[in-house]
Amino acid sequence: MIERTIETATKQYPLLLGDGAVRALPCLLRALSCPPGTKMLIITDDVVAPLYLDEVRATLAAAGYDVYAYIIPNGEAAKSFDNYYACQTAALQCGLDRRSLIVALGGGVVGDLAGFVAATYMRGIRYIQMPTTLLAHDSAVGGKVAINHPLGKNMIGAFHQPEAVVYDTAFLRTLPERELRSGFAEVIKHALIRDRRFYDWLRAEIKTLADLQGGKLAYCIEKGIDIKASVVREDEKETGVRAHLNFGHTLGHALESELGYGVLTHGEAVAVGMLFAILVSERLYGRSFAEHRFAEWFAAYGFPVSLPDGLAPHRLLEKMKGDKKAYAGTVRMVLLREIGDVEVVELEDDKLLAWLCEFAGQGGER
Amino acid sequence: MIERTIETATKQYPLLLGDGAVRALPCLLRALSCPPGTKMLIITDDVVAPLYLDEVRATLAAAGYDVYAYIIPNGEAAKSFDNYYACQTAALQCGLDRRSLIVALGGGVVGDLAGFVAATYMRGIRYIQMPTTLLAHDSAVGGKVAINHPLGKNMIGAFHQPEAVVYDTAFLRTLPERELRSGFAEVIKHALIRDRRFYDWLRAEIKTLADLQGGKLAYCIEKGIDIKASVVREDEKETGVRAHLNFGHTLGHALESELGYGVLTHGEAVAVGMLFAILVSERLYGRSFAEHRFAEWFAAYGFPVSLPDGLAPHRLLEKMKGDKKAYAGTVRMVLLREIGDVEVVELEDDKLLAWLCEFAGQGGER
Repeated sequence: MIERTIETATKQYPLLLGDGAVRALPCLLRALSCPPGTKMLIITDDVVAPLYLDEVRATLAAAGYDVYAYIIPNGEAAKSFDNYYACQTAALQCGLDRRSLIVALGGGVVGDLAGFVAATYMRGIRYIQMPTTLLAHDSAVGGKVAINHPLGKNMIGAFHQPEAVVYDTAFLRTLPERELRSGFAEVIKHALIRDRRFYDWLRAEIKTLADLQGGKLAYCIEKGIDIKASVVREDEKETGVRAHLNFGHTLGHALESELGYGVLTHGEAVAVGMLFAILVSERLYGRSFAEHRFAEWFAAYGFPVSLPDGLAPHRLLEKMKGDKKAYAGTVRMVLLREIGDVEVVELEDDKLLAWLCEFAGQGGER
Repeated sequence: MIERTIETATKQYPLLLGDGAVRALPCLLRALSCPPGTKMLIITDDVVAPLYLDEVRATLAAAGYDVYAYIIPNGEAAKSFDNYYACQTAALQCGLDRRSLIVALGGGVVGDLAGFVAATYMRGIRYIQMPTTLLAHDSAVGGKVAINHPLGKNMIGAFHQPEAVVYDTAFLRTLPERELRSGFAEVIKHALIRDRRFYDWLRAEIKTLADLQGGKLAYCIEKGIDIKASVVREDEKETGVRAHLNFGHTLGHALESELGYGVLTHGEAVAVGMLFAILVSERLYGRSFAEHRFAEWFAAYGFPVSLPDGLAPHRLLEKMKGDKKAYAGTVRMVLLREIGDVEVVELEDDKLLAWLCEFAGQGGER
């Protein structure tokens, strides 16, 4: 079992990572001052529930907790106002009070939604993250919680750190390939923005998704968490370096919102977004990353490497201008100076539009 | 002009109180690092808007700000999920970014709703409180923001301190009597929980609502704010003494929720709730407050002094058990030991039910 302490300006909390981590829950909860009888609401989705809900529920019940569950639909479309309201209603009906705890059992969608419910139920109660996907190595750490609005992804939310992250890697064994791929985009992102050596390791060791298992998968999660944690330690509230984590997300979020949540997975959208950010970086810095053959590398994992058909560049630009990192309508993108080194750059609309058109035109050539 | 600094564990901010305080806005906003061009969304209601929106909007526009407005219906029923969502949509459509500012222009309902919008828009942006009611002397200070759920009042919310409170007492001149009465309940509450001398002053100087004007009204607001600020300074997040501010609110919130939001004003519900809390205090402490003739005093201001007809005590008890201060289904009420001295007490269901029945039976006799 790997143990980490996630540190932010406002809070420290433990992260447990490993096969069978779920069994450490009772001991952990005692340390968190959750006496027997504490009400716990597990929020999960209809894909995870049949696989792992019984085990988690039984573990908590055996430790003497008063356990409830609420199940949302699987998929990005579930991060909606309607489900947010439904979870709040469920929490009230279960009689959760300010000493109760919410358990987010699932991927990034469940973690973001359940975390935002916890952030605002009775003005904020405690919650723990129990990731069941590779993607959640990113979303479960750092306390950013949110729901989507049709006008933009993650637009309504809060910073609300969990009490703990319990990451049972046994839960990843049933992960569908598309989910594994989605999460791997964030692993790649973490390497590209902050760790050249990890990038080299990924290029050498993970040739296709089939390589993502056992010790290599665990190493990817561990490295991803360490990079994420180091960023969050420096900048909890995204006033500075935390914005670097948005590499690939400016266009990525615009794609998700424009296509309708769930059409592309988050990782697929971010992969396309990273390729676009690399093109912008090349144009702006007047350099080339051609030797890295990024599109070819991404394609080997099965990522889309070009804009989906039928998207108008000017509409994507409008979405990007509404991004949370934009100020006064000026798009701010994270650009790649070198592998492992990024910065936030303000970009003019007309240049961005020209590059979007160029990106749309070149198909999978990058 | 009276100036105060509101201090909490996480933040300090200015409060300006006086006739014409609105004219101090431009100077204040410059001090808050809001450069010209900053987008500002005024959230107000359809009673306040025809009276004061133009003046506030013009003041901000003249200072070079990019001003938008969104108008919700007046009344407690407006603190709903639907209006919360509508405000978020408006903020997105106006293109508010993380440097933008929300202006809550109105009473407690507008302040709570707009504050919660600000707390969660893009994970939190800045806002200022511009109270237009007497009640808002309480709600505008301290950073508690929320919306209602049909299962309970203020159940969904956050702690999000404003950047400033700008309280223009000229806005109170148009306040309907029922609104003035509603706010005065919180003034009485502040005196009862923490300030015997202020209580004596109220008994001597404010015989009826007609006395609530000019210098006496201003003094009530100033004293109320000072008491509220002193409590918030000690305990921002309601882990201790801040719960004292809930005096009269345990039954009060239950009444509002059970009758439907807006049937009683908040102050009317709190007035009935305080009379019940006094009855419980007498029974539990085995003492009498009869000499104070509280019901008679409240009646002179036009407050209801008994339970509205047709409410079942056991249903009120159920609502009280769902209160945010309840733990594990045990009601916790703020009780009066002496005038100016309260404490939080856990109460057994059967005793509470008996006292509710007694309170229901005695009509206006207290």
